[in-house]
Amino acid sequence: MKHYVEGKLLIIGGAEDKKGECKILKRFIQEAGGKESHLVVLTAATELPEQVGAEYKEILLGLGAAEVEVLDIPERLAANGESISQELQKATGVFFTGGDQLRITGVLGGTRLGKTLHRLYERGVIIAGTSAGASVMSDTMIVGGEAGTAKKDTLTMAPGLGLLHSVVVDQHFAQRGRIGRLLTAIAQNPYVLGIGIDEDTSILVYADGHFTVVGSQTVTVVDASPSIASNVSEVSPGQALVLTPVLMHVLADGYSFDLKRRISSMTPV
Amino acid sequence: MKHYVEGKLLIIGGAEDKKGECKILKRFIQEAGGKESHLVVLTAATELPEQVGAEYKEILLGLGAAEVEVLDIPERLAANGESISQELQKATGVFFTGGDQLRITGVLGGTRLGKTLHRLYERGVIIAGTSAGASVMSDTMIVGGEAGTAKKDTLTMAPGLGLLHSVVVDQHFAQRGRIGRLLTAIAQNPYVLGIGIDEDTSILVYADGHFTVVGSQTVTVVDASPSIASNVSEVSPGQALVLTPVLMHVLADGYSFDLKRRISSMTPV
Repeated sequence: MKHYVEGKLLIIGGAEDKKGECKILKRFIQEAGGKESHLVVLTAATELPEQVGAEYKEILLGLGAAEVEVLDIPERLAANGESISQELQKATGVFFTGGDQLRITGVLGGTRLGKTLHRLYERGVIIAGTSAGASVMSDTMIVGGEAGTAKKDTLTMAPGLGLLHSVVVDQHFAQRGRIGRLLTAIAQNPYVLGIGIDEDTSILVYADGHFTVVGSQTVTVVDASPSIASNVSEVSPGQALVLTPVLMHVLADGYSFDLKRRISSMTPV
Repeated sequence: MKHYVEGKLLIIGGAEDKKGECKILKRFIQEAGGKESHLVVLTAATELPEQVGAEYKEILLGLGAAEVEVLDIPERLAANGESISQELQKATGVFFTGGDQLRITGVLGGTRLGKTLHRLYERGVIIAGTSAGASVMSDTMIVGGEAGTAKKDTLTMAPGLGLLHSVVVDQHFAQRGRIGRLLTAIAQNPYVLGIGIDEDTSILVYADGHFTVVGSQTVTVVDASPSIASNVSEVSPGQALVLTPVLMHVLADGYSFDLKRRISSMTPV
């Protein structure tokens, strides 16, 4: 198996608490250096970059971040400019907002800014993302698909940022009933581990290849590598899938999971 | 382990096809004797017994049933009467419509009619039920609960008809995003197997303790007996559950599952 990660990731299932305890955003600031943190918010995913950027800036500063810079990257030309990469290089923590995952990868993929992001990550700078910003973390990402039954060819996938290998992440997971589409994704190649992250819930992924759950809801890991029966190569598009057996792990705050050995902790850490 | 079943059950996840191929309803008629069948439709669950009963009668006759009788049981007094039990005794197949599962058990439970139903079942008469009529099949049934994340004490359960032991059935499964509530149900006692049945999908359960899937969508079996970690006895009501690992089986038309050994077939039968 490939190494899963080189640095630290905080992958959030969307709709993280921004008014109450703000557990996830506080953890992001802490991992990025706390009172020494210099955070960069990337609003590439959203169609409302000014509004969303200003909201996160206010919240993160209010929660104790030292500096917060919002970088909007409207197009590939900007992502290839030198000045914006220099801005990003100051970051001790990077945060991708929600929106449309293809806007992130379409604008950043293969640009100077994209390379800078990878270098930061390899240096140990925490990269966080919520909702669409969560989906983009993996090699291959889910970009669309309906809730409901697992059916062949009912979801669309695309290359992601490639920060986390051999997994596929889905967000707003239980809230939008996405177990079927995550199973459809992993049925196509059970080598890939499926990670479904609920709203106001996140995984903090460490360089050694394990993650810990942070947040109020659950994280569901589905591992189809033990499966002995699948019909994915036989049935027609739209037909119901078979996948058996699948190992599932439902985890809550404090529990951890080893992505390499594919086993969970027995108690919260 | 207890024996799972004594007779034959057809448990339908709701919204079975009534206009097209009608695969599930045709199978019901076939299992009940085909051209020799005498079907009894029990409308206890619904608040519209005349309308729903008339609809099923027309459809089942159109699909080749020899005789179809609709029995409405508005109250326990009726369910204790001798004449209605005599009517039921003629059945070669019994069908519970959808509605509210508590209306079925509240009216039938412990009555003469309830006992007659069990006797028919032990004699090998097929008992079918859709939606609420599916939930009532087991010892303990789910009567309410929200979609979304698995959380402690977020579902309500009640004693069912007790035709199928050691399982809990949920219906409209993928369509209503019910994996979380089914996991919540089995977390309370992993001895119990969770069976989630999608719309227009059913399981045909045989007396030897295996079932075969009939229908267009999927059946999801969740088996928490291998779980090594659970927080169900520790957390407060409403808190996110932990359950790991869980064995999951996603099955489609023609695949079968052995309820005693808890393993699926590798190919459709």
